[in-house]
Amino acid sequence: MIQSVLENAIKISRPEALKGEVASYIPELGKADRRQLGISLFSADGGRFSVGDTKVRFSIQSISKVITLAVALERCGFDRIFENVGMEPSGDSFNSLIKLETCSSHPFNPMINSGAIAVAGYLEPLISFEEMLSLSRKLCRDEGIVLDEKVYGSESDHNSRNRAIAYLLENKGIIQNDVERTLDFYVKMCSLSVTAESLAGLGLLLAQNGVDRESGKQLLSPDTVRTVKTIMFTCGMYDGSGAFAVRVGIPSKSGVGGGILSVVDGRMGIGIFGPSLDAKGNSIAGKKALEYLSEKLGLHMFGAGQKTEGEMEE
Amino acid sequence: MIQSVLENAIKISRPEALKGEVASYIPELGKADRRQLGISLFSADGGRFSVGDTKVRFSIQSISKVITLAVALERCGFDRIFENVGMEPSGDSFNSLIKLETCSSHPFNPMINSGAIAVAGYLEPLISFEEMLSLSRKLCRDEGIVLDEKVYGSESDHNSRNRAIAYLLENKGIIQNDVERTLDFYVKMCSLSVTAESLAGLGLLLAQNGVDRESGKQLLSPDTVRTVKTIMFTCGMYDGSGAFAVRVGIPSKSGVGGGILSVVDGRMGIGIFGPSLDAKGNSIAGKKALEYLSEKLGLHMFGAGQKTEGEMEE
Amino acid sequence: MIQSVLENAIKISRPEALKGEVASYIPELGKADRRQLGISLFSADGGRFSVGDTKVRFSIQSISKVITLAVALERCGFDRIFENVGMEPSGDSFNSLIKLETCSSHPFNPMINSGAIAVAGYLEPLISFEEMLSLSRKLCRDEGIVLDEKVYGSESDHNSRNRAIAYLLENKGIIQNDVERTLDFYVKMCSLSVTAESLAGLGLLLAQNGVDRESGKQLLSPDTVRTVKTIMFTCGMYDGSGAFAVRVGIPSKSGVGGGILSVVDGRMGIGIFGPSLDAKGNSIAGKKALEYLSEKLGLHMFGAGQKTEGEMEE
Amino acid sequence: MIQSVLENAIKISRPEALKGEVASYIPELGKADRRQLGISLFSADGGRFSVGDTKVRFSIQSISKVITLAVALERCGFDRIFENVGMEPSGDSFNSLIKLETCSSHPFNPMINSGAIAVAGYLEPLISFEEMLSLSRKLCRDEGIVLDEKVYGSESDHNSRNRAIAYLLENKGIIQNDVERTLDFYVKMCSLSVTAESLAGLGLLLAQNGVDRESGKQLLSPDTVRTVKTIMFTCGMYDGSGAFAVRVGIPSKSGVGGGILSVVDGRMGIGIFGPSLDAKGNSIAGKKALEYLSEKLGLHMFGAGQKTEGEMEE
Repeated sequence: MIQSVLENAIKISRPEALKGEVASYIPELGKADRRQLGISLFSADGGRFSVGDTKVRFSIQSISKVITLAVALERCGFDRIFENVGMEPSGDSFNSLIKLETCSSHPFNPMINSGAIAVAGYLEPLISFEEMLSLSRKLCRDEGIVLDEKVYGSESDHNSRNRAIAYLLENKGIIQNDVERTLDFYVKMCSLSVTAESLAGLGLLLAQNGVDRESGKQLLSPDTVRTVKTIMFTCGMYDGSGAFAVRVGIPSKSGVGGGILSVVDGRMGIGIFGPSLDAKGNSIAGKKALEYLSEKLGLHMFGAGQKTEGEMEE
Repeated sequence: MIQSVLENAIKISRPEALKGEVASYIPELGKADRRQLGISLFSADGGRFSVGDTKVRFSIQSISKVITLAVALERCGFDRIFENVGMEPSGDSFNSLIKLETCSSHPFNPMINSGAIAVAGYLEPLISFEEMLSLSRKLCRDEGIVLDEKVYGSESDHNSRNRAIAYLLENKGIIQNDVERTLDFYVKMCSLSVTAESLAGLGLLLAQNGVDRESGKQLLSPDTVRTVKTIMFTCGMYDGSGAFAVRVGIPSKSGVGGGILSVVDGRMGIGIFGPSLDAKGNSIAGKKALEYLSEKLGLHMFGAGQKTEGEMEE
Repeated sequence: MIQSVLENAIKISRPEALKGEVASYIPELGKADRRQLGISLFSADGGRFSVGDTKVRFSIQSISKVITLAVALERCGFDRIFENVGMEPSGDSFNSLIKLETCSSHPFNPMINSGAIAVAGYLEPLISFEEMLSLSRKLCRDEGIVLDEKVYGSESDHNSRNRAIAYLLENKGIIQNDVERTLDFYVKMCSLSVTAESLAGLGLLLAQNGVDRESGKQLLSPDTVRTVKTIMFTCGMYDGSGAFAVRVGIPSKSGVGGGILSVVDGRMGIGIFGPSLDAKGNSIAGKKALEYLSEKLGLHMFGAGQKTEGEMEE
Repeated sequence: MIQSVLENAIKISRPEALKGEVASYIPELGKADRRQLGISLFSADGGRFSVGDTKVRFSIQSISKVITLAVALERCGFDRIFENVGMEPSGDSFNSLIKLETCSSHPFNPMINSGAIAVAGYLEPLISFEEMLSLSRKLCRDEGIVLDEKVYGSESDHNSRNRAIAYLLENKGIIQNDVERTLDFYVKMCSLSVTAESLAGLGLLLAQNGVDRESGKQLLSPDTVRTVKTIMFTCGMYDGSGAFAVRVGIPSKSGVGGGILSVVDGRMGIGIFGPSLDAKGNSIAGKKALEYLSEKLGLHMFGAGQKTEGEMEE
């Protein structure tokens, strides 16, 4: 039954892709085929379902912020991370500098670029990129994850906005690590090459509070996972997070490579690849598919909403 | 056991009140005693627990935004309401005008003043305040709810910021209803007089997807309730909503009268009264108490977080 | 010679009018014919030159801010006016609320709506509109100035943005006068009906440091006039003031009725009427004409700029 | 007589210095003695007056923006410079990024950091720093001007905010030159070591529309000088430019090294050194001295304002 729901999701969502565009500000990402679409769903009871382009490798981009935050929480601790990075949705687009200038001394949350670069600044001195790569493979249960050298090169060459953000953070004393090393770490993490299946694997791990289903090992602490899931729910879909929470109700994180990582708490992980983006930078077909899945499979955090009428009238 | 947890919550939270201040911008609210604190917890299985000042009447203030939104969703429909009001956390304080000027043609969400005033503009022509009062009593299961004439008068006399917001909304075509009637409706709803018990009653109704526990009646549709709970989770605690979601993880809505309405989905409603506020306008002792209850009773949406260590290391 | 320069100015500027639009946000202003254009130049030596539509009455709009500021400086004194209103160009459009929210407790300058409304709040309790009308006639040497009842009615009916500004100023304690009376005073001053000749008359008075040429009377103090001219230079052409200062270099104030008041210090007053506006709200043909006059008659504050080449090279 | 006015200016202004602080964000500047004060006034008729610390070398800082703009106008032309840099006062502080994010695709004017860095980006490929140094000596008539290596080193090490601005400009396509070379050029120009006398020399050159008094040579074109003087008048004193224009009325440019360059058009150049700064970054004693000189010597652009009373009353 899940398999057929996924197939339907693909069928009704694929046409949406034609309404969006692939990311263009990093030239290498602009080469993607916007008609691609794949959904993987890994269930806590062991079921694994994949439909469409679920083995195609693509650039993880902002979804890496979830991995970086999780590892940083484990290595640096909650208090250190959130001393200078907030937990608030910003209401602005992901690469905005405004709030840093007008409001406060710190980035609003670790899911926007400024916050993620700050977190990278804490983490980079403590762990090598190679170790991060190895951890990413483990957390996603995907040994095929590699650094996509082309994306890494292309992004490094077109990184002036993130560089501006990073130097502003240095100016505010939030980044005390070397800025160029911090940026390189950040860009490398964004350039990891994953599949919809990798994301479903990571999603399942988070759905199970950090316990790896096969080995039974606690890979991430429940505290870390809880924090990560909450922030995904409130801030994971850029400045469309609030509407996504209402309509879909599944903690998710998107990336401009077209991926979406979704966590149905206690039940399943979902990974999506669909590189055609809406104006906010979220996979347009992916969002449609998740809305469909949420309704059909009853995945909304706050209940299925069976369209019963209220009897409130006097 | 719940009773003793509540008693402990009161005990450890009461000292927090001394770190905050009662609201001062509406003179009548400034007369509250900041040491007051009460918690009511109404459970889906019928248990009712109250500790402290739970029968003291106080001004509902922004918590009325939940009632207004729920009624507006029932009467006007989801699409009408969200045509000109967003669902995004704004990252700004509750009475800010900035986003209206810099970003978009519409208020960010119905939990901030601009959004709630817009919603009031839709609803006012369709329903009288007297009917709203009657509905409020029904939804809270509290026949004692009245309009506090002193607060209503005081707030009407000190309403220039909300008046500025309302006329700006008129200028943008979002309020097409009479502005002064809209404001009067809005202020009257803010001036309802409730208790911690009223809020626990409303919380339980929302926890049960709109079904009244005693009569079995569906007072609000599940769709409405789901939307309301999600927006409470992402936007309910002013610009501290994100951190509250991470630390406490319970959909809640606060008001500057010192109240907090909390909904533990499927399980219970919690109402708190503690008029001493933090800098963002949330009950300072109330937040402390909810953090304690969340941990002790395992109420966080994303799991209890039992402080187990991860074994992620290589 | 001046006469023929003016005739040329009209000839080369009239086509510009087709690139702009008449003001539309006040319906009554939208009825103007955008092809109209008139220039009056009154010289300190007694010369009076008028070409085109210089006897057509039109709505003074923001140019009244100059009169209101001058009278307020005389009646309330420099320190009282600038206690809560700044003297800085804002960089934002004339009806913006942003700076009031993000930056400071006061409006940036008395040439934008927020500042002018604040000044109206100081002045309204001290002087009746009838007295202001009488003074306006005297300062402009034009007994034909009247309140245009149609514009006044139309503007009063479409005033929600200024109303929002005024209530925000009340909220900040800057307006302590009755808000609706303040707004009425402000709107009435904007609805005065003038001609290009009225403005040339006022311009000449300011060029002569407040001394009326014919009677020899000091109508405004030199201090007041100096302040007014300086603020016209830095802030008089909305958020195009800086570029206008560089290109034209004549203290001027524009209004969305299509008027421009210009002061060539010590030498002449110029009044222009051309209701077709550019995107910033300045008369588009009027600006072109002034640029031409500045060059041909050598009116730039900082010299004529005869296009001599520098010999700076090594 | 001028000599005694200057001496009085020093006497009444020196105590002001104790109300301010020397610049601290560049460590090397923090070593200045805030009690220093010097004024040089070079007159068009050949008079040269100096009182106080007028031979002390100090860091030119933002006053170099005037030299860079003048040279850039000569080398690149007006249209090229103002294609992507505005001429509007910004209303924000000198090192702000806000307007770049919220308003427009370009820096507001060449007197704030973002605009000056953009101009440096145009100029750097066309002219070496050594040539700029040589020109600076010529324009200021001071062969003693050198690059202060300590300031240059200190500023290069504490330049993250300007680096953020520069990369944001690159991101917007405004800087197409190499960013690090552009910044280095900009910082070197800020690190020139001048005296109050150098600035008086430059001021006199500008007062004489670019003609060097002694050689009679046209070092800068009148067009360039006119543009520079106008922009100094509207934007030269950071976000205090408007109030300074009203109170003092002399085109001026300040720097956080404590210098002020002033131009009394056609009459004189004034150079001031007083390193104690007000909150906006202007020399606090320097401003006081200029206000005094403006009044005593009648230097205000819009007349001396002899405090005659108006007779406007009915």
